[in-house]
Amino acid sequence: MSETALPVSLDRSSTEPLAVQVAEALRAAAADGRLRSGDRLPSTRALAERLGVSRTVTAAAYEQLHAEGWIAGRHGSGTYVTTTPPGSVRGKGRRPAPTPPVVEVVDFAPGAPWAEGLDRAAWRRAWRAAADSLPLFRPHRAGLPEYRAVVAEHLLRHRGLAVLREEVVLATGGTTAALVELSATVWRPGDAVAVEEPGYQRAVWALRSAGVRVVPAPVDAEGLLVEGVPAGVRGVYCSPAHQYPMGGRMSAARRVALVERAREEGWLVVEDDYDGELRYDVAPLPLLAALAPDVVVHLGTTSKILTPTLGAGWMVAPESVATEVLAHRDRTGTSPSAAGQRVLVELARNGDLGRHLRKLRREMAERRALISSRLSDAGVRVLGDDAGAHVVVPLPSAQVEREVLEAAEEVGLRLDGLARHHAGRARTHGVLIGYGACSREQLTGALPVLERLLRRVTPSG
Amino acid sequence: MSETALPVSLDRSSTEPLAVQVAEALRAAAADGRLRSGDRLPSTRALAERLGVSRTVTAAAYEQLHAEGWIAGRHGSGTYVTTTPPGSVRGKGRRPAPTPPVVEVVDFAPGAPWAEGLDRAAWRRAWRAAADSLPLFRPHRAGLPEYRAVVAEHLLRHRGLAVLREEVVLATGGTTAALVELSATVWRPGDAVAVEEPGYQRAVWALRSAGVRVVPAPVDAEGLLVEGVPAGVRGVYCSPAHQYPMGGRMSAARRVALVERAREEGWLVVEDDYDGELRYDVAPLPLLAALAPDVVVHLGTTSKILTPTLGAGWMVAPESVATEVLAHRDRTGTSPSAAGQRVLVELARNGDLGRHLRKLRREMAERRALISSRLSDAGVRVLGDDAGAHVVVPLPSAQVEREVLEAAEEVGLRLDGLARHHAGRARTHGVLIGYGACSREQLTGALPVLERLLRRVTPSG
Repeated sequence: MSETALPVSLDRSSTEPLAVQVAEALRAAAADGRLRSGDRLPSTRALAERLGVSRTVTAAAYEQLHAEGWIAGRHGSGTYVTTTPPGSVRGKGRRPAPTPPVVEVVDFAPGAPWAEGLDRAAWRRAWRAAADSLPLFRPHRAGLPEYRAVVAEHLLRHRGLAVLREEVVLATGGTTAALVELSATVWRPGDAVAVEEPGYQRAVWALRSAGVRVVPAPVDAEGLLVEGVPAGVRGVYCSPAHQYPMGGRMSAARRVALVERAREEGWLVVEDDYDGELRYDVAPLPLLAALAPDVVVHLGTTSKILTPTLGAGWMVAPESVATEVLAHRDRTGTSPSAAGQRVLVELARNGDLGRHLRKLRREMAERRALISSRLSDAGVRVLGDDAGAHVVVPLPSAQVEREVLEAAEEVGLRLDGLARHHAGRARTHGVLIGYGACSREQLTGALPVLERLLRRVTPSG
Repeated sequence: MSETALPVSLDRSSTEPLAVQVAEALRAAAADGRLRSGDRLPSTRALAERLGVSRTVTAAAYEQLHAEGWIAGRHGSGTYVTTTPPGSVRGKGRRPAPTPPVVEVVDFAPGAPWAEGLDRAAWRRAWRAAADSLPLFRPHRAGLPEYRAVVAEHLLRHRGLAVLREEVVLATGGTTAALVELSATVWRPGDAVAVEEPGYQRAVWALRSAGVRVVPAPVDAEGLLVEGVPAGVRGVYCSPAHQYPMGGRMSAARRVALVERAREEGWLVVEDDYDGELRYDVAPLPLLAALAPDVVVHLGTTSKILTPTLGAGWMVAPESVATEVLAHRDRTGTSPSAAGQRVLVELARNGDLGRHLRKLRREMAERRALISSRLSDAGVRVLGDDAGAHVVVPLPSAQVEREVLEAAEEVGLRLDGLARHHAGRARTHGVLIGYGACSREQLTGALPVLERLLRRVTPSG
């Protein structure tokens, strides 16, 4: 389509921000076929001039569409439509056929949050409330006091963790940022730390980049195999709530065994509470940090349950560790950014955080049920506990894994393979289907294709 | 005073946020003697109930007063007035005597920004505008595109640096956070990096914590002595705009010599543009990054010119370094926080950032002139270029330095000594007087005391 026909009209009396209106108009144009894959969009500057808005408005709209994967290219050097949104077809008014998929590239790689589900009004309200906070003169090395209080409340309410003293709750810049800090304080260069294998490779890289020696520790359907942790390590990193990527939940017996070995052998256990807030219809198990606050550092983050925009995570640590981390921050002049902390405080204060988490849990539970029943019905085995925002489909070999990833890419589905979640040679094969970031329509539209792709290659298929 | 008499009344029709009103009322009460040092304040909860506002309002007000150093203690466990604001006396209506100082503890330690001078309306406006931005699905490893554009514009306008490609401008979490990233990418554990001595010890710690070996490089009134950098280092960290802490500006000849040696010997030079925006009535010299973009990483931050709240800094790097840093962030799953970047973008967009910088420069120039002429007139030698937000007064020995710091503390002035700005044994002695964070009244009130303290101990006094 020609640029001049770009169908954007703005309602300046609306409470909807202009950037949101622009993004929505472009999405709508793509949905009914007025914009097609490959179409070039005007520059943010040109569009801003045409609409009589500031360039910030158009840049924000493009950025959002870019983050959603619908457009590609860089501001200024040409922006193209890459993907037509779910449910759209090449002409107005027609309904999509179930297969081949009408979406062009849908991102099922795990790890991105359901940012679409984050209530825009609540988001705006939180920022506007945060606007009344005053700028700081000196950084708060431990995080804003109100933020630490909100985190303590969150942990109590959603994770059953009673933090007795807020002094041991520190803000962090995120989970891997916290691992780097632990590597610079409690661990020394060359110290060995066990990490689940397969496991979270960003943690592996974060530890290695900080000079820590990473040793693999095997996992099964119940998470980390405690007896598989080699002797001589100084720490253990694990994800007991929902082992990443395999999806097992660490059993109560293993939790007890882990903290007992940790006490005996002097390990610091890092409990990455990945997907901790996303558990469906299952009784909660005690956090490692609740069982053994003396040897466990508990890590959480807002980047998966809300958005990476905030850059805000947290750490609950044994008191001596918290003290060391704070001293390290003071010596090196680093602090987690306070701006995102402010916004989270406001989201929590008026209940929007709680509402979002309930909505997120409900939506992800439904999505998981959808995908898991569809695949199971087709004889495709799905691994992992009833939790989180991704499933794992085991495959017989690395070769089959690569073939499925390629075949999926060809029909517009971006999946993730288990190969890249190993620090050593991959011994477990399969694909990950992350259902957190896409829209519900993208998921239902893609399900028949996923089924067809996986039915013929899975061991039980 | 008893808690019930706490003189806070709120104007709900005012555009001033309630937290600001509460903080101002408490400051005013302290200023006219209704609140005194040692008085206990009600808990944030109790005060909130009494005023009929949310606890967030009172907590924010206390936090602000805490950050300004006027109150101490933790929320919930008792908060006390520690300091009576400048100009206040023990009774209403009396004027302060010039000496002893009426302030109880005024913080003249360098490094804190003039957050008081940051226009509250502009600050609020920026946050409210940022409220219209959408939450991200995936982190921007390099920083928000709009933020990088704003930084490029800032560098061009205020630092004379033309960045040809925005790809080499990355957001950072601050100066020392960037040093840690460089240590994990371009440098290897055990690599030697030269750091100015005396110099910025947080940089020294950041490098050391990342496994880099720090070697001292001497400075004089013209900053880093280029011929004093030992052979065999892999990098050089320096602060050419206003050497921290000694205050010299690196001469043009040295700048050229430094980048020449860097090219010959394969150094990566880190140009910490500390106080770069604060230069008064002196012609600008080219940035190292302008002279040699191929071997220089330029670092800047908002924490000194605005507030540490944003947690937002920047790096302009040779392309290969920028690429390595981005790959490192992606592998380790770390990104600078986007929330503060959003606020800076909005501050810049409507000109408030530029206005603040002009106001800051004017104010700091006047303060510097005040302090420097007063001390010089008294025969006290003041070191450093006409720039920045602190002066150095040289002293004959470590012993005298300690005595001056103690004597200052006794009369309520917190100064900083050169001793703690050395990585090795201190060879240069003196005190730093940071005039950025206090109020103008605190400064003028303290000047006679500073003069009296320093006149009798300085070599030339």
